Amino acid sequence: MVKERTIVETQVGIVGAGPAGLMLSHLLYKAGIDSVVVEKRSHDEIANTHRAGILEAGTVKMLVESGVDGRVLTEGHEHEGTTLRFEGVSHRIDFQKLVGESVWLYPQNEVFVDLAAARKRDGGDVRYEVTDTQIVDLTSEQPKILCTSADGEDLEIRCKILVGADGSKGISKRQIPEDIRTDNFIEYPFAWFGILCEAPASAPELIYANSEHGFALISQRSDTVQRMYFQCDPNENIDDWDDERIWAELQRRIDGPDGLQLQRGKIFDKTVLPFRSYVCEPLRYGNMFLVGDAGHTVPPTGAKGLNLAFCDVRVLAPAIVDFFDEGDESGLAEYSAKALERIWKAQNFSYWATNLMHIQPGENPFNQKRRRGECASITGSDRGAAYFAECYTGWPDK
Amino acid sequence: MVKERTIVETQVGIVGAGPAGLMLSHLLYKAGIDSVVVEKRSHDEIANTHRAGILEAGTVKMLVESGVDGRVLTEGHEHEGTTLRFEGVSHRIDFQKLVGESVWLYPQNEVFVDLAAARKRDGGDVRYEVTDTQIVDLTSEQPKILCTSADGEDLEIRCKILVGADGSKGISKRQIPEDIRTDNFIEYPFAWFGILCEAPASAPELIYANSEHGFALISQRSDTVQRMYFQCDPNENIDDWDDERIWAELQRRIDGPDGLQLQRGKIFDKTVLPFRSYVCEPLRYGNMFLVGDAGHTVPPTGAKGLNLAFCDVRVLAPAIVDFFDEGDESGLAEYSAKALERIWKAQNFSYWATNLMHIQPGENPFNQKRRRGECASITGSDRGAAYFAECYTGWPDK
Repeated sequence: MVKERTIVETQVGIVGAGPAGLMLSHLLYKAGIDSVVVEKRSHDEIANTHRAGILEAGTVKMLVESGVDGRVLTEGHEHEGTTLRFEGVSHRIDFQKLVGESVWLYPQNEVFVDLAAARKRDGGDVRYEVTDTQIVDLTSEQPKILCTSADGEDLEIRCKILVGADGSKGISKRQIPEDIRTDNFIEYPFAWFGILCEAPASAPELIYANSEHGFALISQRSDTVQRMYFQCDPNENIDDWDDERIWAELQRRIDGPDGLQLQRGKIFDKTVLPFRSYVCEPLRYGNMFLVGDAGHTVPPTGAKGLNLAFCDVRVLAPAIVDFFDEGDESGLAEYSAKALERIWKAQNFSYWATNLMHIQPGENPFNQKRRRGECASITGSDRGAAYFAECYTGWPDK
Repeated sequence: MVKERTIVETQVGIVGAGPAGLMLSHLLYKAGIDSVVVEKRSHDEIANTHRAGILEAGTVKMLVESGVDGRVLTEGHEHEGTTLRFEGVSHRIDFQKLVGESVWLYPQNEVFVDLAAARKRDGGDVRYEVTDTQIVDLTSEQPKILCTSADGEDLEIRCKILVGADGSKGISKRQIPEDIRTDNFIEYPFAWFGILCEAPASAPELIYANSEHGFALISQRSDTVQRMYFQCDPNENIDDWDDERIWAELQRRIDGPDGLQLQRGKIFDKTVLPFRSYVCEPLRYGNMFLVGDAGHTVPPTGAKGLNLAFCDVRVLAPAIVDFFDEGDESGLAEYSAKALERIWKAQNFSYWATNLMHIQPGENPFNQKRRRGECASITGSDRGAAYFAECYTGWPDK
């Protein structure tokens, strides 16, 4: 018996309903262009997977001005600065004073919730829990997504433009033949141990802390729930860490003469987050375009991941509009190079911030002392601090 | 037969008549404090050893305002900026516009000539070509320099303060016992191949060039003599490099779409310059104080060596004056920590600039692409460029 396929025709087929895929679908809708988004996870799985989030002003602007939702402004927290804490001494970087920008603390899964709701509100075609996804005919004028829907229907989604927004483990980038694709990446000899806990905030803004024991990040989520991380071995076993040991480890990484004390509380989520720096080049293959983590990932220090995904979308969306509205392919032709320009700047910042704040296992002690000099050059000078602030809050679009 | 010793009494005994030692002796003289300087090389050997030199404004100010000489202003060249050339594309960093400072191209051996002349003019006691130098009794109230003068006389120079200004291979720092001294250092897997040639300048300011073939520095000396360098293996054999091969290597490291061509000419000096980053901690032992290369060395990228030595002197000279004039030891007590603050900033900048511009043998290709992003973050933004410019032209004294 041959199972029948349902043919779906659309202008843009998008693999992945994370923030990048949904934001693209939303912007295309606003410009009158049809898209279909397929996603292997369920809505609730994505919504309930805790993801940190520091949003650049440009990201917030996209959410608010494109009419996704203003919830980021009411439920998110504006941070006008951040703190680099070095060997127990805090140095605040005042973003507003230095570069006239803020960032917003607003979890990535909330960004997803808002985008998913907006797509639903506007009648968007987003299909969750699809299985057996394949993408084919990418170099033809009609690339296709093949998959099975949540209720078992075999789908063939025919489009003109196919967008891979399926994250770092997605299938899209692997369709670029190896003789065309360059996988640029570096590994790090550490990971982050992340926790969520029921406690009041220990600080009003993020604290990036370096100490001889390694890096820690004191972050926030809400008035009653906090997010914190500390540098750990990538093979760290979560079961070895009870609450008391975690608190002691976090506390000793921020201990200093000012007596800063973490507000402790019940820890209800523990995760080891490995990471690496990765860039796929090019970000286009035939009529497939990669956006967000599908094309590049950064270490979490500096919080560039989601912001960079939205930057990709800011470049790709108007290029797709020009293609359909004007038959102008120049934007599509420039997409990869244009997006990569910012991606490499963000890669560099993420690498720099990671190496500034972490201790390499077995490293030459020269480097920790040198980092003190680096910290002094950045935090002890408005010019150094402004450079850091500009990288952190995001460069203006070109 | 017991050979007799000549006893010389002075307030400050200085080992090493390089720029750091002579500048200190000069400033002490201006404050009415006696010093004796001993040096193993001859005046002419130091004067004729070609040394590059980019002087920070603070260094120039010390030479001019303390009455050493104004020759730096008339024979040196003011550079209001520098160029970072990345993969064949030049990006100028405008120091004057960004931070209101310039640097001066003026060779270090000319700085020595001026200082030696000033010390001679002012009746300074500088003894060249001494041999068998020893320093003893450093933790006593009367440290001593023992040596044999150029004409064979055995000298015992008794002082209250002894200053080690005898360079990176000097004896001073090794007198600090190993349980007190920390030698912080890192090696680099490359060196600089330096040439002097008879040619007109290829550019009005320094060009720091990165290319897939490695780093090159296009520098100047005078209207008719130029100084250039390219990254090489530390074990490079000079004899393998005839003029033609050198010019081809330099040229390919700056080749770019603008067609920049080096002005070639007879090469009359070739040297392989190995380097490392080194900091001795602390910079004081008993009544001995280390200044300049005797206490710390930087890789030449960023030209911090001589400037940092003068910064040490700017901290130490007034501390010595306070000690003799007021009996106030607090400046001496703070010297090491205060000088090290700037030293570690300069160490970081030198390390950063070196890693930004050089290619590591066998490195992950990710890094060269990341450096493009770093170059764009610095040269494509006034904030990035101002941070670089501030590091390069030198931080204000605290």
